Amino acid sequence: MRLSRTLLPVTKESPADAQIISHKLMLRAGLIRQTAAGIYAWLPLGLRVLRNIERIVREEQDRAGAVELLMPTLQSADLWRESGRYDAYGPEMLRIKDRHDREMLYGPTNEEMITALFRDAARSYRDLPRTLYHIQWKFRDETRPRFGVMRGREFLMKDAYSFDMDEAGARHSYNRMFVAYLNTFARMGLRAIPMQADTGPIGGDLSHEFIVLAPTGESDVFYHSNWERPAELSSVDFDDVDGLQAIVGGYTADYAATDEKRDSAREAEAGEALRQSRGVEVGHIFYFGTKYSAAMGMKVQARDGGEVVPHMGSYGIGVSRLMGAIIEASHDDGGIIWPDAVAPYQVGLINMRADDAACAAASDDLYAKLGGAEGGRVLYDDRDERGGAKFATMDLIGLPWQIVVGPKGLAKGVVELKRRATGEKVELSIEDALQRVAA
Amino acid sequence: MRLSRTLLPVTKESPADAQIISHKLMLRAGLIRQTAAGIYAWLPLGLRVLRNIERIVREEQDRAGAVELLMPTLQSADLWRESGRYDAYGPEMLRIKDRHDREMLYGPTNEEMITALFRDAARSYRDLPRTLYHIQWKFRDETRPRFGVMRGREFLMKDAYSFDMDEAGARHSYNRMFVAYLNTFARMGLRAIPMQADTGPIGGDLSHEFIVLAPTGESDVFYHSNWERPAELSSVDFDDVDGLQAIVGGYTADYAATDEKRDSAREAEAGEALRQSRGVEVGHIFYFGTKYSAAMGMKVQARDGGEVVPHMGSYGIGVSRLMGAIIEASHDDGGIIWPDAVAPYQVGLINMRADDAACAAASDDLYAKLGGAEGGRVLYDDRDERGGAKFATMDLIGLPWQIVVGPKGLAKGVVELKRRATGEKVELSIEDALQRVAA
Repeated sequence: MRLSRTLLPVTKESPADAQIISHKLMLRAGLIRQTAAGIYAWLPLGLRVLRNIERIVREEQDRAGAVELLMPTLQSADLWRESGRYDAYGPEMLRIKDRHDREMLYGPTNEEMITALFRDAARSYRDLPRTLYHIQWKFRDETRPRFGVMRGREFLMKDAYSFDMDEAGARHSYNRMFVAYLNTFARMGLRAIPMQADTGPIGGDLSHEFIVLAPTGESDVFYHSNWERPAELSSVDFDDVDGLQAIVGGYTADYAATDEKRDSAREAEAGEALRQSRGVEVGHIFYFGTKYSAAMGMKVQARDGGEVVPHMGSYGIGVSRLMGAIIEASHDDGGIIWPDAVAPYQVGLINMRADDAACAAASDDLYAKLGGAEGGRVLYDDRDERGGAKFATMDLIGLPWQIVVGPKGLAKGVVELKRRATGEKVELSIEDALQRVAA
Repeated sequence: MRLSRTLLPVTKESPADAQIISHKLMLRAGLIRQTAAGIYAWLPLGLRVLRNIERIVREEQDRAGAVELLMPTLQSADLWRESGRYDAYGPEMLRIKDRHDREMLYGPTNEEMITALFRDAARSYRDLPRTLYHIQWKFRDETRPRFGVMRGREFLMKDAYSFDMDEAGARHSYNRMFVAYLNTFARMGLRAIPMQADTGPIGGDLSHEFIVLAPTGESDVFYHSNWERPAELSSVDFDDVDGLQAIVGGYTADYAATDEKRDSAREAEAGEALRQSRGVEVGHIFYFGTKYSAAMGMKVQARDGGEVVPHMGSYGIGVSRLMGAIIEASHDDGGIIWPDAVAPYQVGLINMRADDAACAAASDDLYAKLGGAEGGRVLYDDRDERGGAKFATMDLIGLPWQIVVGPKGLAKGVVELKRRATGEKVELSIEDALQRVAA
């Protein structure tokens, strides 16, 4: 994409009400704009990152055997009366009346709707187990929205729901998501630690929250240094019940706890290996048995002819929130440092002298070789601006690679290649630069 | 995808309240389920079609030079007060109060929000022209929602907005979208005819609606037989002002009109070439000058130092509605016939005898060779069901190709390949069948 043809309103200052670094940088780098309290528009660069995060989440859900569908944003209040949650849910639920005065709401979560849909679709044990998920906008009417997309009101969430014939099956479904989550966050360059969690208003007796380590995160976390081992993708057979349980057991053996859940005995045991940091919650998984299926009268026929009330779990990832978490975990004084996997473009191409024919020709050629407008790999700063402003913009928006084309270098047949994360700069021939960023 | 692992609740009968064929078939084929009046959940198969439609729309918007962003579903009422539309808009607008009693609404369209965003981001003529679009859920509180996704309340729409320095520029932006729309619908296997339209409450003086010919469509349309020429993709340079105008001029020279816009003189002129059919509106484009930019105080600096109020247009495509339109245009007594470009899977693989080891092995092998679970090209009916039910399901869901593996054929070393659109069946070796569906 040519910068002269897209919309990238970067700014030097951030608004006074932006308190945390990810919020400031998202505004300054032209990723988002607030359109109402806690509600944001995603500008072109921000949307590209959001789609990359969403794609990784989707691929790992699919790999774990979950099936995607899409539920609407608005729900009928009657559905929530079936589970008894309509009156129980607090003012975070946005309640709406339509033109016929029917009570509706903007879904903050979808346990009721998925239970109703699957109750109507599933007849017998042959239709189970299933884990169904969607990636859809949710609304929670926070009384004081803040921290940008980290605590917004309209937010994008992946929520999955599992249905099993019994508790053992449900635990396997839970383990599938547990491992899928570790893989999801690792692919985004994040170190995410699952921590035992309270189940809160959703109910149930088994729950983990996944917390990404970020020096500027919202909460204190305590963990064993074993968690500092490099994040690794598990290449697992998700259908292997025992194998998956062993992986989950291995991970949960090492101590990790949020402030509210600290265990002094286990911390003493960890001794010098105990670490403290700050973190951002990016995912939460629950097993809650038959809470919703029983309340909503869902039954399926068992193999022996009897009837069974399915066991359920639910599994959330804050997709839009993840963008804030990634920035909290990966930035410097110059701006954002996108992990390759979620970067809006891989390469920022800077033409230092838009008014110089040779520079323009070499830059245009490089742009084409990097895939041009359609490849989606390169953002080309072809504007007639000062070099300094272009450098600052590129650092701010944090693409993994920068290629700088200037008259002096061109005379020597070289361009400058910079790695954003390290700041390392090298002069290379155009061919070598292309080869390096293709890796 | 294995049918035994997804969610595909097909039914023989359709609910009594489904009046039109696309609504009936979408329910029967397990594409959607209604969750409230005029609000639908998209089940896995329906979501795949929706994503394919969305992808084609996006690719053609990008090709025409439009830039994608994403605006939220909820908007502040104050934004609509700036344009004066908050009080003018009828009860189709879903008005909402949040917990602090602030007036909000579920966006039915986004002229106000995009104008506010671009007003804050654009400073001068250097930032124009721009066409910005998003693909987002909208809500219109129809008093009597019906016809499934054709007249639902929560629906997915692509809406684009162009900003130009003057009317000539705006007409070029309009022409970009005009041609992009023809290409978009042609890629989906639809014959879409642009027809001069009233501009309605959006205002302005230049407008076309794009109507897809479908024998069971909602409205009568009249057109010159020249429109029956095969739909063709225009390979055009969207930056070529005159070239684009010539294409638009060529298309609009042939008579085409909805019932309300008939022109008896032009119909007489067409003589025997006049055709009558029914159609479904799938897109609508408008040029409306400075209506919103002037009302909302948007100005940019001109090249000569003066100030200019940008000229705008807006361009909608009903993404979820298109699924209904495609089915109206392409079905038979057995069910849906998906055009290849939007089909949820290209191949339906039927194992006639799940209990026969040879059939299962050959089917599993074919499934893997067609890409298996991850390739997304094949839906594999591996269930233990009667052959007749499997055939009926495959015809109903309308995948372009069916491959049938049965014990008799296998003994001869062949499978049956069926083309859904024509019903043509041939016996082929497994290798030849794979080659045919790969084309």
